[in-house]
Amino acid sequence: MKFPSPVSLSWLADFLGARLLGNTGASASGINEIHKVEKGDLVFVDHPKYYKKCLESAASFIIINQVVDCPPQKALLIVEQPFEAYQKIVKHFRPFEGATQSISPSASIGKTSYIYPNVFIGNHVQIGERCTIHPNVTIMDHCVIGDDVVIQAGTVIGSDAFYYNTNKNRESWYKRMLSCGRVLIEDDVEIGAGCTIDRGVSGDTVVGSGSRLDNMVHIGHDTVLGKNCLLAAQVAIAGAVEIGNGVILWGQVGISKTLSIGDNVVVLAQSGVGGTIEAGKIYFGSPAEDANVKKRELIWVKRIPELWKKVMDKPKA
Amino acid sequence: MKFPSPVSLSWLADFLGARLLGNTGASASGINEIHKVEKGDLVFVDHPKYYKKCLESAASFIIINQVVDCPPQKALLIVEQPFEAYQKIVKHFRPFEGATQSISPSASIGKTSYIYPNVFIGNHVQIGERCTIHPNVTIMDHCVIGDDVVIQAGTVIGSDAFYYNTNKNRESWYKRMLSCGRVLIEDDVEIGAGCTIDRGVSGDTVVGSGSRLDNMVHIGHDTVLGKNCLLAAQVAIAGAVEIGNGVILWGQVGISKTLSIGDNVVVLAQSGVGGTIEAGKIYFGSPAEDANVKKRELIWVKRIPELWKKVMDKPKA
Amino acid sequence: MKFPSPVSLSWLADFLGARLLGNTGASASGINEIHKVEKGDLVFVDHPKYYKKCLESAASFIIINQVVDCPPQKALLIVEQPFEAYQKIVKHFRPFEGATQSISPSASIGKTSYIYPNVFIGNHVQIGERCTIHPNVTIMDHCVIGDDVVIQAGTVIGSDAFYYNTNKNRESWYKRMLSCGRVLIEDDVEIGAGCTIDRGVSGDTVVGSGSRLDNMVHIGHDTVLGKNCLLAAQVAIAGAVEIGNGVILWGQVGISKTLSIGDNVVVLAQSGVGGTIEAGKIYFGSPAEDANVKKRELIWVKRIPELWKKVMDKPKA
Repeated sequence: MKFPSPVSLSWLADFLGARLLGNTGASASGINEIHKVEKGDLVFVDHPKYYKKCLESAASFIIINQVVDCPPQKALLIVEQPFEAYQKIVKHFRPFEGATQSISPSASIGKTSYIYPNVFIGNHVQIGERCTIHPNVTIMDHCVIGDDVVIQAGTVIGSDAFYYNTNKNRESWYKRMLSCGRVLIEDDVEIGAGCTIDRGVSGDTVVGSGSRLDNMVHIGHDTVLGKNCLLAAQVAIAGAVEIGNGVILWGQVGISKTLSIGDNVVVLAQSGVGGTIEAGKIYFGSPAEDANVKKRELIWVKRIPELWKKVMDKPKA
Repeated sequence: MKFPSPVSLSWLADFLGARLLGNTGASASGINEIHKVEKGDLVFVDHPKYYKKCLESAASFIIINQVVDCPPQKALLIVEQPFEAYQKIVKHFRPFEGATQSISPSASIGKTSYIYPNVFIGNHVQIGERCTIHPNVTIMDHCVIGDDVVIQAGTVIGSDAFYYNTNKNRESWYKRMLSCGRVLIEDDVEIGAGCTIDRGVSGDTVVGSGSRLDNMVHIGHDTVLGKNCLLAAQVAIAGAVEIGNGVILWGQVGISKTLSIGDNVVVLAQSGVGGTIEAGKIYFGSPAEDANVKKRELIWVKRIPELWKKVMDKPKA
Repeated sequence: MKFPSPVSLSWLADFLGARLLGNTGASASGINEIHKVEKGDLVFVDHPKYYKKCLESAASFIIINQVVDCPPQKALLIVEQPFEAYQKIVKHFRPFEGATQSISPSASIGKTSYIYPNVFIGNHVQIGERCTIHPNVTIMDHCVIGDDVVIQAGTVIGSDAFYYNTNKNRESWYKRMLSCGRVLIEDDVEIGAGCTIDRGVSGDTVVGSGSRLDNMVHIGHDTVLGKNCLLAAQVAIAGAVEIGNGVILWGQVGISKTLSIGDNVVVLAQSGVGGTIEAGKIYFGSPAEDANVKKRELIWVKRIPELWKKVMDKPKA
């Protein structure tokens, strides 16, 4: 999330009750999670295991729960509970707005776009030209839809991320990290019925231009789908996945979180991808492997009885 | 389902045209299926295979299609078609009410809860305090939502059970057993977008406090989910499943009906659980097994060609 | 799609800028894709690989991009872009109508059917008697619902087909083939919550009488499901599949496109069917096989370590 205008670190330190070290005169342009940070951004870290990664990331300003050496040009905001500081900033800059009408007066909708009845369009949503939004679609606050986009009935754009701070010593183990990111649907995208696309936690979930989604496709927070991708029915993609251009995922494929899929990959139906996979190849299986390797394996399995017989038939030495 | 007040067996016998035997002066407090019966409940049975189980269950009163020995203190209601008797009772005590408004005037909604536009809330629904119900959500009659619950867009709470009386000698093979149960969402539960949670047939489907459901999760009738469970996208749980506390089901996991899953179980993505599984362990595969056993098995499969070669290379005796 | 009345080929040739050869005085009764054509229909073909199949199909009139021998009684309409000619015909005879109300005044709904609030019913939809349409359901234009049908909340009937003309030399690879077909739900069908059933591209998607669909079932375009079928939660069936009567698909089963499933087949949970399968048998696995064969295979896999030991223990010759 970018702030509406740069926010001075001294105001932030005061707002958070933080101790400010390093480049104390600077201003932050936004706040982001570690996967998505850019120069000028705030980031937060609350576990020594991740200190180094955060301090060395593109983020300029780090909300942290301990005094550490501050990298040059950067600044530290020291608080006891960095996660709570993050939540406080998000609540302040993205307050809950609710909705008094099905289509928010603050939404901007291209004159040539067609919105069916029973659609919900949240605050500050932008919809381009020549789009068709079918009945019972939900588009939550701040999402951006390009030109020539079709969204079929019952689909939800901009649901909150399934992303939790876990602590099993609390009565309630999972505390939602507030989502302040968006969904960006680029031009010329077609989305089927009954899909769900979560907003980024603090960055953007993106569906690239020319991509086609069948019904009941789920895309997690902060995932970036390339151009001209084809996703068949009931595909599920977890959070923070990077998918190249021209990728085809057949029906009921599942993609695990924070991995990469190269350009023009094809994943055959019902496969499960648990790790980063190379461009231009075909994958199959759960866990997914090179489809040819997997298919040979299926043939080998069929030969076990024959192998057993061979071993049993051999005379004892 | 509990009746609004105790119902005398003599009235019931008259209503159903039943012959009444045993403790004929008693009153029934409710009606339930065999998995869920309590003392004072009615239950029905129409196949000798299940007579013993029903007669010995906690149910006090048995609707049955044959005269059998009545256990002490209990009563029998003898009718030709026990299933039809059950349907008649449900229709009488839970008549179809329909809805003239999107939010029923008989629903009770906490003053601090926020209901977005385009939401449907049925008759006698109860919603606690500080809940957020997103657009295009459907909550059907009699469901109960606790405090601090989030239900994201397009989700359906309280759809009717997928539970049928089967008879292939009829033109229409599957006759729906009318649902008179509820869905109970405990406090501090978060449910993603596009989920469906069926009501109990005659008992309750329960989601325990602190649990988090991602998008497109399906939960069947009468299933009881414990506290602090985490269910990733596109998980499907069939009917009458008992799930402990702290259970994690990763993406696209399927759980078959009427089984139990112990506390703190983790089921890895795309696995299929077909039988009861022990607490505290990690499972993988379809059918699911201990994840370590399954992973070793995957490695063994890869060694078949090597094994084949070893056998082929051995000199003939 | 059938035209509202027969359309003369000479008018069509003029409308499309086509050269007309063969039985030039005839009239076309409709337009259909190759899987669904009947006598009197138009069909289109743009690749020599499919010329023969189209010319020899039941279609009477062929829109084609090359002069070929015209079969007797038939006619050819020669254009440069047959796909574009198809789109032009569909747009003309099924123009985009949109909707100004949630329930179209042109829809015909049986007096004894019950429509909950927040439902969308499109133009020219027909709904029979004694149906119940739950909240937040979407039924798009031209779909036909029989008598005694239940459609639970959030379900979408008549979404457009996921069916594209692919050309990777364009900036946008996938161009949607416009859907002008319908969904036909026969009498006495029950459909769960959150399902999606796509309309036929130019033919009909059919759900046979007595069939029962659990929640989150997806059915692709032009698929024909028989009578008394039972589809459990999260089943996905691709396009143009023929499914017999009395078929049971358990949870999360996936069925690939353009194949046939015989009567009374049972497919066990999470299986994936990639080819036509015989009537009356039970299937399991991804890819699905005869369930007994597959189960024996799972046992054989478990014996690999024992086999390995046997081979290793044998004395070297």
